[in-house]
Amino acid sequence: MATRLSAHEVKGVFEKISTWGKWGKEDELGALNYITPYKRAAAARLVQRGETVSLALPLATQSSPENPQPVQHMMLSAGAPGVAALDYFSIASHGMAHTHLDALCHVFWQGKMYNGFSEREVGRFGARRCAIDITRDGIVSRGVLLDIPKLKNVEWLEPGEAIDADDLDAAEKLHHVNVNEGDVLLIRTGRHQRRKAKGPWDVRRTGLPGLDATCLQWLSDRKVAVLGCDAVSDVIPSAFGNEIAMPIHVGTLVIMGIHLIDNADFDALANAAAHNDRYEFLFTMAPLILEHGTASPVNPLAVF
Amino acid sequence: MATRLSAHEVKGVFEKISTWGKWGKEDELGALNYITPYKRAAAARLVQRGETVSLALPLATQSSPENPQPVQHMMLSAGAPGVAALDYFSIASHGMAHTHLDALCHVFWQGKMYNGFSEREVGRFGARRCAIDITRDGIVSRGVLLDIPKLKNVEWLEPGEAIDADDLDAAEKLHHVNVNEGDVLLIRTGRHQRRKAKGPWDVRRTGLPGLDATCLQWLSDRKVAVLGCDAVSDVIPSAFGNEIAMPIHVGTLVIMGIHLIDNADFDALANAAAHNDRYEFLFTMAPLILEHGTASPVNPLAVF
Amino acid sequence: MATRLSAHEVKGVFEKISTWGKWGKEDELGALNYITPYKRAAAARLVQRGETVSLALPLATQSSPENPQPVQHMMLSAGAPGVAALDYFSIASHGMAHTHLDALCHVFWQGKMYNGFSEREVGRFGARRCAIDITRDGIVSRGVLLDIPKLKNVEWLEPGEAIDADDLDAAEKLHHVNVNEGDVLLIRTGRHQRRKAKGPWDVRRTGLPGLDATCLQWLSDRKVAVLGCDAVSDVIPSAFGNEIAMPIHVGTLVIMGIHLIDNADFDALANAAAHNDRYEFLFTMAPLILEHGTASPVNPLAVF
Amino acid sequence: MATRLSAHEVKGVFEKISTWGKWGKEDELGALNYITPYKRAAAARLVQRGETVSLALPLATQSSPENPQPVQHMMLSAGAPGVAALDYFSIASHGMAHTHLDALCHVFWQGKMYNGFSEREVGRFGARRCAIDITRDGIVSRGVLLDIPKLKNVEWLEPGEAIDADDLDAAEKLHHVNVNEGDVLLIRTGRHQRRKAKGPWDVRRTGLPGLDATCLQWLSDRKVAVLGCDAVSDVIPSAFGNEIAMPIHVGTLVIMGIHLIDNADFDALANAAAHNDRYEFLFTMAPLILEHGTASPVNPLAVF
Repeated sequence: MATRLSAHEVKGVFEKISTWGKWGKEDELGALNYITPYKRAAAARLVQRGETVSLALPLATQSSPENPQPVQHMMLSAGAPGVAALDYFSIASHGMAHTHLDALCHVFWQGKMYNGFSEREVGRFGARRCAIDITRDGIVSRGVLLDIPKLKNVEWLEPGEAIDADDLDAAEKLHHVNVNEGDVLLIRTGRHQRRKAKGPWDVRRTGLPGLDATCLQWLSDRKVAVLGCDAVSDVIPSAFGNEIAMPIHVGTLVIMGIHLIDNADFDALANAAAHNDRYEFLFTMAPLILEHGTASPVNPLAVF
Repeated sequence: MATRLSAHEVKGVFEKISTWGKWGKEDELGALNYITPYKRAAAARLVQRGETVSLALPLATQSSPENPQPVQHMMLSAGAPGVAALDYFSIASHGMAHTHLDALCHVFWQGKMYNGFSEREVGRFGARRCAIDITRDGIVSRGVLLDIPKLKNVEWLEPGEAIDADDLDAAEKLHHVNVNEGDVLLIRTGRHQRRKAKGPWDVRRTGLPGLDATCLQWLSDRKVAVLGCDAVSDVIPSAFGNEIAMPIHVGTLVIMGIHLIDNADFDALANAAAHNDRYEFLFTMAPLILEHGTASPVNPLAVF
Repeated sequence: MATRLSAHEVKGVFEKISTWGKWGKEDELGALNYITPYKRAAAARLVQRGETVSLALPLATQSSPENPQPVQHMMLSAGAPGVAALDYFSIASHGMAHTHLDALCHVFWQGKMYNGFSEREVGRFGARRCAIDITRDGIVSRGVLLDIPKLKNVEWLEPGEAIDADDLDAAEKLHHVNVNEGDVLLIRTGRHQRRKAKGPWDVRRTGLPGLDATCLQWLSDRKVAVLGCDAVSDVIPSAFGNEIAMPIHVGTLVIMGIHLIDNADFDALANAAAHNDRYEFLFTMAPLILEHGTASPVNPLAVF
Repeated sequence: MATRLSAHEVKGVFEKISTWGKWGKEDELGALNYITPYKRAAAARLVQRGETVSLALPLATQSSPENPQPVQHMMLSAGAPGVAALDYFSIASHGMAHTHLDALCHVFWQGKMYNGFSEREVGRFGARRCAIDITRDGIVSRGVLLDIPKLKNVEWLEPGEAIDADDLDAAEKLHHVNVNEGDVLLIRTGRHQRRKAKGPWDVRRTGLPGLDATCLQWLSDRKVAVLGCDAVSDVIPSAFGNEIAMPIHVGTLVIMGIHLIDNADFDALANAAAHNDRYEFLFTMAPLILEHGTASPVNPLAVF
């Protein structure tokens, strides 16, 4: 089993895996650079059955212990005779309830975001660098699912339970798949199965399962383009306290420029992958073009 | 040239092209039923270069004559030292400014929505039938662009200018493409070129170019699954006054169960299609899963 | 005890007490016309101790069975070094949770609002007649509290429990006060005491205490300018089913042009009134100037 | 004429006029402590004619150069037959467009708010100290208007034009009024007259008239309870650059605990005061009870 790292060691890893400057000083795409046209075309050729699977939760309009800021949905016209039905919604995309894509400007480490841009590039009116609209032409690539509860033969991982690099290796073997350059890597923890069985919990206090800091080197080696999780990728609570509250968020968004999908839903995907006996598929996702924004709600798709 | 129809004739067309009951009394998918797994798999095989093109406008956060209800975007945290950057946005998706997908519950005709469901299925808390979440697994199919300004050798169609069924036939010939069952048909009017040249205008008063009512029979014959436009598909103002304010909206959403993409942006797509000399491509779109909702903002993608 | 009225009789009362036309065809002030400068000056002279009491609940930001649409409160800046703290809130003022003033355009009876204006004066962009901004210069008058639980020697009235005209007479006697022309009449049901003791309930289903339809004639006789309640003035559920769902709302807002304060909090006021042994006081309230709006959240004050 | 102060001298004034600790270590009311019940009762006795005047602008729902974040007002039901009219609005109260009351937690100086509370008392979920709900029982006192354009015999003061302590003295003489302990002091600059004549301008760039830093000692001497202005009290741009961007905001909110009313409208008040030949009146204002909030929109009233 991979040994737990100290906070000091994690900082060492950050230095080692940094991609700052790799694609030029002005680059804001980060690891999306790994997704070449060739990679996309190859991903499209994975489609055989023409079956699509949503990887998103419905927009959560009810408050709950895990959703203190629900999506607000209101009818503006309920359709009186002769009149159309109209509505409105609002969303604070971040947090631990809504399926969303984090922009690279979302998190800072030592005053910097990805590629060394200053946190001062984010102000009252949004981000001038690494905003979510950098993804305006969508993210289309090969998706790979690693179903960790299946690996561990449990229904779900418990809050606070860590997935380490050895687990990722083992899941690859189990699923007969190899994560490689430009892939969108999706990690299933089974979080939503636990909620269905036990009801929602306060994820900030009770925690969530997620990747151990040992996975950072692994993600770097494999040149992952995007990381997604049905939880928030990081183990909650952090093994490093406030010193490094979210090592995966920092190591991916800031250090390697890897965009993160938080709070996805991979339950249907796990079923489809098992049923097709195939853990790779065409992945497609098109964030809304929110200029200067720090995130977008998304509904990523897997196509088998 | 196709002859203009009278209001009476349009109502006759509605009766002739209706798909109510075609896929069962309880069906809420409408023309999405035309998109089979086989169709999707074939669409994926269109991908050759691995090039993606967004078909959406950026979320319009500034008010303008065409955008009286702008998207509201606010920072919730601008990223103080050690703190993440967070934001929030709200959107009234309908209208003539934001790229969005209309749910089949959006419009009524004589008190009914698609498949004869009563307008009373829509109330203060949303739609119980034909809400936008019916598209939760995304819409993946062949996309076909018909570039009407290119056909007419103009930069844009003028407000109020109508496209008729003959134009659609002619555009197919020009582009060497045939629209058929399950296609996502995208009609370019050049609207945004006009705005770039002349500034925004009050589209409700001054109008928009769009499809003539003669196109309804054509859409029915070709078994189009989804219709999209860089304007709102209907000519504004209507040729039929208040009697049939939006014949295309009624004929598609209500009568045939065809979902509509309004206010898309096909300028980059037109360039890509011309450059590739190919007007068909993989189309993928994943509306947000807004249960009971009447629309979703979308960022549809074309993949060449 | 006053006899319960039939629906037919209530409609008869509506005809008898109507003030339509009383202040001219174009009048939008309704019973606010009863508040003369002389009345205001006399009300100011009631101030002796210089003690103020709020009559509002805090804005309810948490959802609960009685508050399905909570106020949304978000920080826009939490005050990084050198930066101000900023926030934002949104409110759907109506319903049964927030202390608000109903504009006369809020409710219709047979297609009409106060003074016979058509319901068509209210459209997608608000009300052209009888909007809340008619109260822009505030409402300053004599306030009178009738504390019904005190009269009935209970802690609170139960959901569905009716207050009739005889109760109003009896409360006046108990409190040594006479309601008369231009007064702001405040009816305490003890609703919030019940919530504190038993927790919130679904007021739409379980009901609320309120005024019986017999009170309408009484309100007309006394020439009340504004009516306020810690519930919503009407008994819920209605004694008349859907035929007249809210007879007090219709009889006041529509028929007599009496503005209504819903969901106020009179618990502190009841204490102050008992302590001062005085149930009349200077009342002052200044709705926000929301042009075309149907309501405003308010914080009315009593000054002793 | 009062001499302009240096930034160093302003900091000296801050030390001299500080009221931290004056009303106890835990005090959050600040200068509102000057408003005694006796003061309120005396203020009520100023009412003679029973005339009320609003001191607020209508909620500004249209964007303009001075209003980049307009109030969002939407109908939730436009009143179909038998259905009530309902609406919704949202407001970011601060800035330079909406009439609002600043809470004492709104601004920090050297990491502190009023009474030395740390800026860390304000976080993602609002303020734990000195939030706007401290004013829940309303602010009722004597109001005094100083009409500076009238003093200077101009229609309005220009952006950037400063009012100094000598001007305040002179205005008192002109109006035959003396500002003293517990008063709500209202300073008219004529800003809205300028807008009516010349159209809105970008107040952040072009500036606003307001009080010079010399006025701080004056406000301290007079023991003003609340300060209001039709602009934002501070001269924009600051005479001290970023070093002290808003000396009046800091000196009042932070140093003396004086709440500020920004963006009021004193044009009707000036007419009423001139007409009554009286610049003192009953002032009443009841902010919404937004717990943890940093401001509330208000509609303050003057009663003559």
